[in-house]
Amino acid sequence: MDAEEFRRRGKEMVDYVADYLEKIEERPVYPDVEPGYLRQLIPTEAPEEPESYEDVMRDVERVIMPGVTHWHSPNFFAYFPTATSYPSMLADILCGAIGCIGFSWAASPACTELETVMMDWLGKMLKLPDCFLAGTDGHGGGVIQSTASEATLVALLAARCKAVKRVQSINPELSEAEIFSKLVAYTSEQAHSSVERAGLIGGVMMKQVPTDYNYSLRGTLLQKMIEEDKAAGLVPFFLCATLGTTSCCSFDNLQELGPICNEQNMWMHVDAAYAGSSFICPEFRPLLNGIELADSFNFNPHKWLLINFDCSAMWVKKRTDIIGAFKLEPFYLKHDNQESGLITDYRHWQIPLGRRFRSLKMWFVFRTYGIKKMQDLIRKHVALAKEFESLVRADKRFEICAEVVLGLVCFRIKGSNELNQALLKRITKSREIHLVPCQLSGQFVLRFCICARLTESHHVQKAWQHITQLTFELLQEPIN
Amino acid sequence: MDAEEFRRRGKEMVDYVADYLEKIEERPVYPDVEPGYLRQLIPTEAPEEPESYEDVMRDVERVIMPGVTHWHSPNFFAYFPTATSYPSMLADILCGAIGCIGFSWAASPACTELETVMMDWLGKMLKLPDCFLAGTDGHGGGVIQSTASEATLVALLAARCKAVKRVQSINPELSEAEIFSKLVAYTSEQAHSSVERAGLIGGVMMKQVPTDYNYSLRGTLLQKMIEEDKAAGLVPFFLCATLGTTSCCSFDNLQELGPICNEQNMWMHVDAAYAGSSFICPEFRPLLNGIELADSFNFNPHKWLLINFDCSAMWVKKRTDIIGAFKLEPFYLKHDNQESGLITDYRHWQIPLGRRFRSLKMWFVFRTYGIKKMQDLIRKHVALAKEFESLVRADKRFEICAEVVLGLVCFRIKGSNELNQALLKRITKSREIHLVPCQLSGQFVLRFCICARLTESHHVQKAWQHITQLTFELLQEPIN
Repeated sequence: MDAEEFRRRGKEMVDYVADYLEKIEERPVYPDVEPGYLRQLIPTEAPEEPESYEDVMRDVERVIMPGVTHWHSPNFFAYFPTATSYPSMLADILCGAIGCIGFSWAASPACTELETVMMDWLGKMLKLPDCFLAGTDGHGGGVIQSTASEATLVALLAARCKAVKRVQSINPELSEAEIFSKLVAYTSEQAHSSVERAGLIGGVMMKQVPTDYNYSLRGTLLQKMIEEDKAAGLVPFFLCATLGTTSCCSFDNLQELGPICNEQNMWMHVDAAYAGSSFICPEFRPLLNGIELADSFNFNPHKWLLINFDCSAMWVKKRTDIIGAFKLEPFYLKHDNQESGLITDYRHWQIPLGRRFRSLKMWFVFRTYGIKKMQDLIRKHVALAKEFESLVRADKRFEICAEVVLGLVCFRIKGSNELNQALLKRITKSREIHLVPCQLSGQFVLRFCICARLTESHHVQKAWQHITQLTFELLQEPIN
Repeated sequence: MDAEEFRRRGKEMVDYVADYLEKIEERPVYPDVEPGYLRQLIPTEAPEEPESYEDVMRDVERVIMPGVTHWHSPNFFAYFPTATSYPSMLADILCGAIGCIGFSWAASPACTELETVMMDWLGKMLKLPDCFLAGTDGHGGGVIQSTASEATLVALLAARCKAVKRVQSINPELSEAEIFSKLVAYTSEQAHSSVERAGLIGGVMMKQVPTDYNYSLRGTLLQKMIEEDKAAGLVPFFLCATLGTTSCCSFDNLQELGPICNEQNMWMHVDAAYAGSSFICPEFRPLLNGIELADSFNFNPHKWLLINFDCSAMWVKKRTDIIGAFKLEPFYLKHDNQESGLITDYRHWQIPLGRRFRSLKMWFVFRTYGIKKMQDLIRKHVALAKEFESLVRADKRFEICAEVVLGLVCFRIKGSNELNQALLKRITKSREIHLVPCQLSGQFVLRFCICARLTESHHVQKAWQHITQLTFELLQEPIN
C-alpha cells in the first residue's frame, strides 16, 4: 500500500471508526461466541500473495466484531472504564506515523521532553506536592508506564534495591540473597492481584494486611504486623497502599500509613489506578491527602481521563532511586548529552526498553478538553453512580455493599450467594448490559461501574429496569 | 470533539501522516535541539478551557517536529529498524477505536483468539517446530509481548519458578531464598543489556560467557562454566542465547548450546529480536536451526516485519510453564469459560495486566502484503547492506569488523578509536544521516544498519559519499 492508497483507506477507516462509535449501542455489549469460534473462520496460514484490502475490512465485520466485548458501549458497566476520546485517537495516529522509539533522549528528544512536561502538567492538575515534579531542577518526576501493574513492580524493585543497600551498609557480611529472604512487603487484602504478583516477580514476601469495616487499610494493623515481623528478624521495606480498590473502590488511610512507613524506612507506593483521575476535581482531591508521605504514586489516565490505553502515570520523589534499580549503560545507547544532568533516559525508569510517543495523547487531550471538560466527565460519571445507588436503595430486595465514592456501585440481592450468582448469569446471558462480580466479606457482590464516555442517565435507568426485571423472573422460579 | 468533527480531523490527520512520510527525506534525520528545548516552547500548565484543535496541530510543527529523530527517514541507519507500514497503521486506528482490554478471554474473545491464531500463522511462516504452536490441541503457543526485554524477563521468571520446584522436590528443606542464591543464568558477553537486567529484576546471578572470534557463543565455553559453577554448589537453570546480537548481529550456536541445556535441565530462551523477521526467507531459515532444542523463542515483528511498535512475538513449548510462574486468580476476573481448556487468558503470560488488540496489526499486514512481499523487504535490506559492505571493502582506509549476515554493517577507519569517534561526531553533527556506534574487541566501531522501509540504493550510495567526504576532511586535520 502506497501513500496514495493510504490517504483513501485512512479516510475510510476514520469513517468506519466514527460509524462504529456512533452506533455502538446497536451491538450486543457482550459477544455470543464460544471459545475457539475464530479459528474456524479464517485460513490456517498466512497467504503467499497479497489479498485485497477490501477483503480484510469485510472480515472485520465477519470475524472480529462478533467476538468483541464492546468496552465503549454505554451499556458496559464491567471492570473499570478504559478511556477513549477522539483527540486521543488522533494523537495516536500521529504517534504511529512518527513511530520513534523513545528509550533515550537522543532516540527522539521530543518524545522524552514532552513526556516530562506532560507529567508535570498532570501532576499540577492533581495538586501533587512539588517534590514529585521534575520542573527544571527537581529531584522527582513522572514517567508513563504501560500499566499500573508495571508501576507497582518498578516501585517494588526500586524499594528492594534501596533496602538491600541499607541492610548491607549495616551488615556487610550478608549476601543479597540472604537479605532478600528477610525482606517483607505489605499491601491490603483488598489490593489488586498485581501487587501480590509484583512480590512474586521480585522474589520477596508480600503480606496482606486485613482492612477495617470500610475495606480500608489502617495504621494500627499495619504497625502491629510490622512489629511482629521485625521481632521475627524480618526487614519490612515496602507498602503498596491503594486509593480506590478494584473490588469496591475503598481507600487506604494514607495519613495513618505514611508516618509509619517514613519512620520504618519503608517505601510507600500509592496505587490509585482508577480513582486517580478524579483527583483533578477539588471535591475529590482530599482523597489524595497524605500523598506527600509517599515515595511513589501511580494512576491510569487510560482508565478515566480520556486517554486511550496505554498511559499509566507514575511519579517518584527521587528519580535516582528508580534509576538506580535498573541502570545499565551499554555502549550502543550512550550519547553525547547524557551526562548533562538536563536530560532523561526513560529506559532506566521502566521494565521494557522500547517505548511509544504516548505523551502526544496527553497533550492532545489536555489541550482540546481543557481541565474543566475533563472534570465534567468525572462529575457526570460520579453523579450517574449516585443515581444508580439511589435506585438500588429504593428497592428493598437489594442492598448496597460498600460506600459509593466515585463511579462504582457494589450491590446485591439480599439473599444467598447462589441467588446473586444466578442473577449475574442471567445478566451476562441476556447481553443487554455487562457487569462483573466481586467478593466482599465472603459475599458474592455485583459491581456496577459507570464506564463509557457516552453513558447517560437513560442508560442507567434502563440498566436498572433490566436488572429488576431479571430479578423478578428469578425470584418467581426455583434456582437450579 | 464529536464524531462529526472527528471525521473531519481524522481525514486531515491521515493526509498529514501521508505528507509527513512522503516528504520525510526533506527533514534533517537527527534534530538540532539542546536538552530542555521543549519546556520553554509550551505553557507550564494545562489550560482550564479547551483550546482549538488547529492550535494543537500548528504546535506539532512548531514544538514536536524540530525535536524528532526521524526513524523512518531513508537516511536513518542507527540502532535497529523499527517497523512501519500503512496497513499496520490502519489496523492500529481500528485497535484504538475498539479499545478493548484483552486481559482475559471474556474481556474480548476476538482479541485473544486472533492473537493465538496470528501467532500460529507467524510461527508457520518461520517454520517453527509444531511444538511451539497452539493449534487446537498443542501444549505450546504464542503471545504478543510489548518488547523483547519483557519476553526475556518472562522466560527467566518461568525458568526460575521451574528450577525452584525442581530443587525443592529433591531438597525440601531449602527455602526459596536459599535456592535463589544458588541459581545461575548465562548469556553471551554480546547479549543485549536487557538480559543482564532480567537477572537483576529476578534476583538471580547472570553470568556472561565469552564468545568466539565471530562473537558467537559456543558450547565448549558454556559447558566449562556450568561445570565450574556446579562444582561450586551453584544451580545452572537458564540460558539466553541470541540470534543477531545488537552490537554486530552475530549468532550464538544453538546446535551446540541446546543439547547442553537439555542435558542440564536448563531453560534455553532464544532472543532473535532483530534477526527473527529474516527467518521467513528460506535462505535465512538455517540461522534458526537448533530452535527445536529451545524452551522459548522471541523476536520483534515491530523491528523488521512491517508491524508498528509494539509487537514482540514470543512462543513457548509448554504454556503451563509460563502460566505457572504468574497465575493468580482474583475473583473479579473469573469467568464461565475459563476452565474449559479451550481458552487462553493472556494476562498469565505477561508482566502487565492490560493489553491492546495488537494482533489486528499482524492480520492486516500479513494479508495485505502476503508472505512474498514481506520476504521482498527483508531481501532488499540485506542486499543494500551487502552493497554498503562492498563500498567499505573497496576503500582501503576502512575495514569491516564483523561478518555481514543481514542488514547491519559494522565498520571503522583503520586507525585509533579517537579517530573513529571523531568521524561519528561529524556524522551526527551534520544531520544528513544518523548512525550509532558499538564496541567490538575493545574497538570503537560504527554501525550502519538498513532501517527504513523506503531506503533505496541511492540513499546508501549517498550515505557512503557523505561518510567518505567527512573522512577525507577529518584526515586532513589534526584531531582535537
